[in-house]
Amino acid sequence: MSEDKDMNLHAEGDSCQQQETISIDDKEINGIKKEKNEKNDVNEKIVENGDGDKPKENGEKSIQEPPKEMRAVVLNGFGGFKIKALKKPEPTLSENEVLIKIKACGLSFQDLLTKQGTLDNPPKPPFIMGFECAGEIAEVGEGVTNFKVGDRVVALPDHKAWAEYVSVPAVSVYSLPAGMNYDEAVAITLNYTVGYILLFELANLRPGKSILLHSAGGGVGQAVVQLAKTVEDVTIFGVCNKNKHEILKSSGNIDHLLERGVDYSGAVRKESPEGVDIVLDCLYGEEYRRGYALLKPMGRYILYGLSNSSENKSLSAARFWWQVDKVPPMKLYDENKSIGGLNLRHLMYQHGNNEFVRRIVEQVFKLWEEKKIKPVIDSVWALEDAVEAMQKMYDHKNIGKIIFDLNLEPKPKPATPVKSKLKDKKNLNQEEKKSSIDVENSENQKESELTNGTSEDKSDSGSKGKESS
Amino acid sequence: MSEDKDMNLHAEGDSCQQQETISIDDKEINGIKKEKNEKNDVNEKIVENGDGDKPKENGEKSIQEPPKEMRAVVLNGFGGFKIKALKKPEPTLSENEVLIKIKACGLSFQDLLTKQGTLDNPPKPPFIMGFECAGEIAEVGEGVTNFKVGDRVVALPDHKAWAEYVSVPAVSVYSLPAGMNYDEAVAITLNYTVGYILLFELANLRPGKSILLHSAGGGVGQAVVQLAKTVEDVTIFGVCNKNKHEILKSSGNIDHLLERGVDYSGAVRKESPEGVDIVLDCLYGEEYRRGYALLKPMGRYILYGLSNSSENKSLSAARFWWQVDKVPPMKLYDENKSIGGLNLRHLMYQHGNNEFVRRIVEQVFKLWEEKKIKPVIDSVWALEDAVEAMQKMYDHKNIGKIIFDLNLEPKPKPATPVKSKLKDKKNLNQEEKKSSIDVENSENQKESELTNGTSEDKSDSGSKGKESS
Repeated sequence: MSEDKDMNLHAEGDSCQQQETISIDDKEINGIKKEKNEKNDVNEKIVENGDGDKPKENGEKSIQEPPKEMRAVVLNGFGGFKIKALKKPEPTLSENEVLIKIKACGLSFQDLLTKQGTLDNPPKPPFIMGFECAGEIAEVGEGVTNFKVGDRVVALPDHKAWAEYVSVPAVSVYSLPAGMNYDEAVAITLNYTVGYILLFELANLRPGKSILLHSAGGGVGQAVVQLAKTVEDVTIFGVCNKNKHEILKSSGNIDHLLERGVDYSGAVRKESPEGVDIVLDCLYGEEYRRGYALLKPMGRYILYGLSNSSENKSLSAARFWWQVDKVPPMKLYDENKSIGGLNLRHLMYQHGNNEFVRRIVEQVFKLWEEKKIKPVIDSVWALEDAVEAMQKMYDHKNIGKIIFDLNLEPKPKPATPVKSKLKDKKNLNQEEKKSSIDVENSENQKESELTNGTSEDKSDSGSKGKESS
Repeated sequence: MSEDKDMNLHAEGDSCQQQETISIDDKEINGIKKEKNEKNDVNEKIVENGDGDKPKENGEKSIQEPPKEMRAVVLNGFGGFKIKALKKPEPTLSENEVLIKIKACGLSFQDLLTKQGTLDNPPKPPFIMGFECAGEIAEVGEGVTNFKVGDRVVALPDHKAWAEYVSVPAVSVYSLPAGMNYDEAVAITLNYTVGYILLFELANLRPGKSILLHSAGGGVGQAVVQLAKTVEDVTIFGVCNKNKHEILKSSGNIDHLLERGVDYSGAVRKESPEGVDIVLDCLYGEEYRRGYALLKPMGRYILYGLSNSSENKSLSAARFWWQVDKVPPMKLYDENKSIGGLNLRHLMYQHGNNEFVRRIVEQVFKLWEEKKIKPVIDSVWALEDAVEAMQKMYDHKNIGKIIFDLNLEPKPKPATPVKSKLKDKKNLNQEEKKSSIDVENSENQKESELTNGTSEDKSDSGSKGKESS
């Protein structure tokens, strides 16, 4: 797009010859607050996300007055990390929407699926990524009665959250409780809402039950663990990468840690010969079969993600599982088992269950106010470091939520690739503002992904050596 | 079996030349109480149900002292109504069992599946039918600490309930609350336990939800309706035979009555365009596809019976559905739906979840004590009229529970077939002691079933014209 201005986001590439240029045009973008002219923006904006440059009905580009611009992280194509931090026109505001000035936004597994092209119904690239953000209401669209300018809110838009501004249907915006900061809001809202629905709406969690939980160290995983422990005598079998075990052990909330990628069935049976009451699976594939087999009678398996489809597996592989993993209802009847799925994005943006989701968000905020839950934040990053942050999640190295703080400066990048490897992996700090990434393990994989890239992708600036001190 | 004594139960047959002989041997069986020698019985009994005449370890037949006998309803073979009321040896008592002197027992849809041969893992015929009974504890086996002789109880044995005595594992026996009579106990325990698990354990019923319920006029159906109406603002779409609509309408508990056997999807969508939150299906086959399609997002389909497989359909047809109605979990994830099954018999007798079931029975009895539920009894019959009673359920003519009262005398039977047809079908009385059956509609069907019978079946005494005045 002609108006895009490359902000040198650190996507992978063959070289890192270019120096960073953080200051762009007439706007200071880092650390300096940008004031918004709330009254005169509507007619100046250009439609974002999937519509390319096509002007929207009420968003004709003014030739006299160029549209205001904002920082944003844009996906240029599926597969690999075809991601750039760019200057983009500020979004327009439609009926029943609010415009939010974003203070913090979050990285979720959906973003990895998006970049890989395995998330269904994505906009046509290029588009702004991101599904969760918190900030202040900057403008209120026609028909919106429950928000006013200046309200502190968190929102779950369908894409478009990784930017300075976003316009969101008011039905998917929630007022923040007093005392909840924006990082917390982003760390809580999506993950704990998913966790709450899984445990209390679908799995009907009761005292004394046992749960097998995949990706126990991730954002949703940590939310599920905390929410589950609000119920008496619940036993959690948490599956995650071996490298997270030590830190998760110290938290003490997961009763039995199991290693991702190995058959843990025996380990579960050793502790609980009859199996488990609830399986929460965000991986699918092989894990489905294993999880279902471990279910006790009256047990429930709930699929809430397809992470396996983002790793060395294509959408066609996921469709293959679709074919092989069919369950006859009569088998569920014979075995007294249930299976179900939760796809929050579909629930909100395809199925229109926004009032249901709002009630759950309110429940979650109430638990936070009662200090029964406290979000685990893995690390906070500048928007411009999105690829590094995503790589950390891709490598299963985050424990808890990865946050982007709009006021945070990007990390200084080395002029030449540095292949140092941090030795002390235990230094992961939940409040760290600078994250370390071991890139060596993932380099080959990333390069092979890049072979799918177009010439446009190859022009992305970036660095193989992404670590910073 | 040589010791069986035909009690001329009214099974279908080609003629009814034989006269009834109710009084058998040295025992008056109807209306006269039979006292039991509780101390000396154990070593005299012969094992019943599926073991034929094979003596059990602790149940050697005493040659000197013939075993005491009891009235019982026996299935001689699968398909059709190969059922007889016979004199059978009283059951033996094993460790952890209690012997119950039965006062009332119940007819459930499982009995129809049993006679048809579509219930899995049945004993080898001949065996005593029946899954629910209430009465007094007559003996307590070794290892049983929670019951004593004389206790008023209800039990859910795996077969064997249609008799004067039954020995049951104590884990599936429940003490009656004060004031609950035996008919009520039989009408409540199985049906409301199934209903309670369906609504509150599996479907997670909440205020404002809607339910599509199959066989809404049957025993479980009526239990579900009453239990659902203990929750605020629940809407029930009840599917049942047209002939039940008028009576069910007068009860006022079912918000929308739908006709069984027609596609009611349009009628449901007319009232609730988005569909329903919960589908409770005891039919399967075509109904599964229809029910699943009617589910709202976050909706649950629960299969709790395979009634369709008992009607003009063989087990192989049911297995065919097994093949075609497979659901990929990824579809459930995409659509935010859940499917599950409840098979109480498996739960108790294969999966060993007896403590769970006991907690539910206690909840159900509590609701009865609080007068929040009141069982609907369709009709009460003598044990010897079992075939007529079953035919009534088979023809979808019962509203609520069909009960056998062990103290009730069988109906007088006409000496020759009578082909009268009762005109006033509205006379169905919930407390009727004599039930009317319109046999004409079902005669052809029954005859075709009988062509599968063996010569033994054809020798069954009985009458085509089963109506009585």
